[in-house]
Amino acid sequence: MNLHEIIRKLHLRTDSKIVLLVADGLGGLPTWPGGPTELEAANTPHLDALAKEGTTGLLHPVTRGVTCGSGPGHLSLFGYDPTEYLVGRGVLSSLGIDFDLQAGDVAARGNFCSVDESGTVTDRRAGRIADAEGRRLAEKLQAIEVPGVELFIRHVKQYRFVSVFRGEDLGDNVSDTDPRSTGVRPRDPEPADDASESTCKAIGEFIRQAREILKDESPANMVLLRGFGRRPELPTLRDLYGLDSCAIAIYPMYRGLSRLLGMHVPEKAEKLGAQVGQMRQLWNEHDFFFFHHKSTDSSGEDGDFDGKVREIETLDRQLPAIRELDPDVLIVTGDHSTPASLANHSWHPVPVLLNSSTCRPDRTLCFGEREAIGGGLGQFPATELMALAMGHALKLDKFGA
Amino acid sequence: MNLHEIIRKLHLRTDSKIVLLVADGLGGLPTWPGGPTELEAANTPHLDALAKEGTTGLLHPVTRGVTCGSGPGHLSLFGYDPTEYLVGRGVLSSLGIDFDLQAGDVAARGNFCSVDESGTVTDRRAGRIADAEGRRLAEKLQAIEVPGVELFIRHVKQYRFVSVFRGEDLGDNVSDTDPRSTGVRPRDPEPADDASESTCKAIGEFIRQAREILKDESPANMVLLRGFGRRPELPTLRDLYGLDSCAIAIYPMYRGLSRLLGMHVPEKAEKLGAQVGQMRQLWNEHDFFFFHHKSTDSSGEDGDFDGKVREIETLDRQLPAIRELDPDVLIVTGDHSTPASLANHSWHPVPVLLNSSTCRPDRTLCFGEREAIGGGLGQFPATELMALAMGHALKLDKFGA
Repeated sequence: MNLHEIIRKLHLRTDSKIVLLVADGLGGLPTWPGGPTELEAANTPHLDALAKEGTTGLLHPVTRGVTCGSGPGHLSLFGYDPTEYLVGRGVLSSLGIDFDLQAGDVAARGNFCSVDESGTVTDRRAGRIADAEGRRLAEKLQAIEVPGVELFIRHVKQYRFVSVFRGEDLGDNVSDTDPRSTGVRPRDPEPADDASESTCKAIGEFIRQAREILKDESPANMVLLRGFGRRPELPTLRDLYGLDSCAIAIYPMYRGLSRLLGMHVPEKAEKLGAQVGQMRQLWNEHDFFFFHHKSTDSSGEDGDFDGKVREIETLDRQLPAIRELDPDVLIVTGDHSTPASLANHSWHPVPVLLNSSTCRPDRTLCFGEREAIGGGLGQFPATELMALAMGHALKLDKFGA
Repeated sequence: MNLHEIIRKLHLRTDSKIVLLVADGLGGLPTWPGGPTELEAANTPHLDALAKEGTTGLLHPVTRGVTCGSGPGHLSLFGYDPTEYLVGRGVLSSLGIDFDLQAGDVAARGNFCSVDESGTVTDRRAGRIADAEGRRLAEKLQAIEVPGVELFIRHVKQYRFVSVFRGEDLGDNVSDTDPRSTGVRPRDPEPADDASESTCKAIGEFIRQAREILKDESPANMVLLRGFGRRPELPTLRDLYGLDSCAIAIYPMYRGLSRLLGMHVPEKAEKLGAQVGQMRQLWNEHDFFFFHHKSTDSSGEDGDFDGKVREIETLDRQLPAIRELDPDVLIVTGDHSTPASLANHSWHPVPVLLNSSTCRPDRTLCFGEREAIGGGLGQFPATELMALAMGHALKLDKFGA
């Protein structure tokens, strides 16, 4: 069964509006046996009311047991099989900083890192250097010239930058130089096909010069690159669902991904409350709003259970303002789990609530992982969520007579 | 989505250990309306504790409504779609007795059976004749000569033997001669393609001579053949999961299947307690242990509800010794259901429990079919269990950034 093919044939234009509120890394774990997860521990009267009135369930972003990054996690939420639609991290990052990535450009996510005298990586994030320092170093690297290739180095945030290689026939099947652990040397970029050999040469030359330029810097005296890739051709949300969509997101990657899917991405708001204001302002112009809340994931990754609880509660307090807009379908979920106890993304299924006047009620009393096990939506692939939202918004025609 | 492709890219080598304990035919049914299943009736304090601490669910070995044999049931548990990876029963049995099956050999599982004067099957297992008798008869059959084909008859256990046909271009699309019921005559082997016509001729000749040789024996005066097949090429557990695996199994078929998947198969232990001892001895040498308990299925097939309850309780008493080994992930499940009330395998989903420090708790209080309906794992294809085990063992890298 090809879901995209079916939905393409059935979608209808209506005035109904869908809000997909993604609390990044929402799913969690207890910190002691039998204890509550972050979401269960949080005081969330508004989310609980939404869940009680509506219905809940659990989403699998990729497949059971598999942990995913935020890129694949979001693609899945938007209905794109993340194992089929592969978007490199470099592409996402470069789109997120408004870099005009052209067809054929090969982009990579870069980290400034620290290496010792032998070249061994001692800190993959160079002590998380400040924005100003990262920007200064990125500008320094922009001086590098690689024969036959136009090079773009753009600072993203802190220790993160994007490198883009523009040239003739550059393949993008290149392995990461980031070893993903400390105590080892950066890897050499390896081509996985003939077309990527010249790309590897260019990358190798860039790295050689970068090492030279950064050698007297501290703590950021080297670079690591990963997620090489070209801008992929993805069907847009308008193609698939006939939706006029808008992304209310602050972080670059999510803004970049949204653009890739053809969403309108307004100027970024400064924080959560302003995001809600922005959605209110644009409410009449779109029929699908992707609303992204990042800090649930960040606190989870920091291993900060209480911090994640607070971030969930902060989000909860915005719900009345969002409900005032009276969306026909309001979904709250995450792109993956990020339990503070693991200080990392995880494979555990993600709680989801769907609130709409067309919901069939279940016995859910609140929004939480344990409660969602018995929710009316059951457990299902995240790629099926958009079709469900469309159905509840009465935006899908009948299949067959 | 190709699960094998994903897992192949993501698996990591770590020190964590996984135990997959398969109680064959574990799932059951009540014998009176509203009564307990065998697992629910059994007194299983250790399994209940594992379930309460961990999480439970229900597995579908093939697809809803479809009953499977132990071969496909196990392939599914190990993550191989049993409708894609077809392994004949004969192949499994011949590998299980260490027969050196060569590429092109066509193997079949054989039963000594009883037929009456008209040739009608009266007992498909010839009264479950003893090992010595089965061995004597198998040796007698070895005298058969079939033109153009080298024939191997090997006793397995009791009334069971393996027949292997070795020759040029023997197809293996041959229908069973075992009618799977009594009161009818054995069927003629039928070819499903041209290449299998010569195989059918050879089999027909073998059966003709076997009938002649056995005609004065009692009760085993005829043979039934089923599960014709050639040795397939399967990816190993090391290929797929990077696991160094070991099979603690007593029965030939399970040992054969394990070998086919590249598992280390130590000499067989005599009984359940010895199996645990064997796992303890080999604990440091492997990171995945498949532990097989057969008698839950045997008693279910005999229609012996109380016997199956006892076999489950016997297994439960071994759990403390297994837990002492401190596996990072301990899974207890079955390869299919075998309700005593049906005296046969069935299609009902199989209860599964997964215990690991990385479990998200659910509200399960004990291990049983009804309780598993509300378990945190939900209902899912058995083919996804291994990926889940790998995730919980922290043996899978993140998918995408």
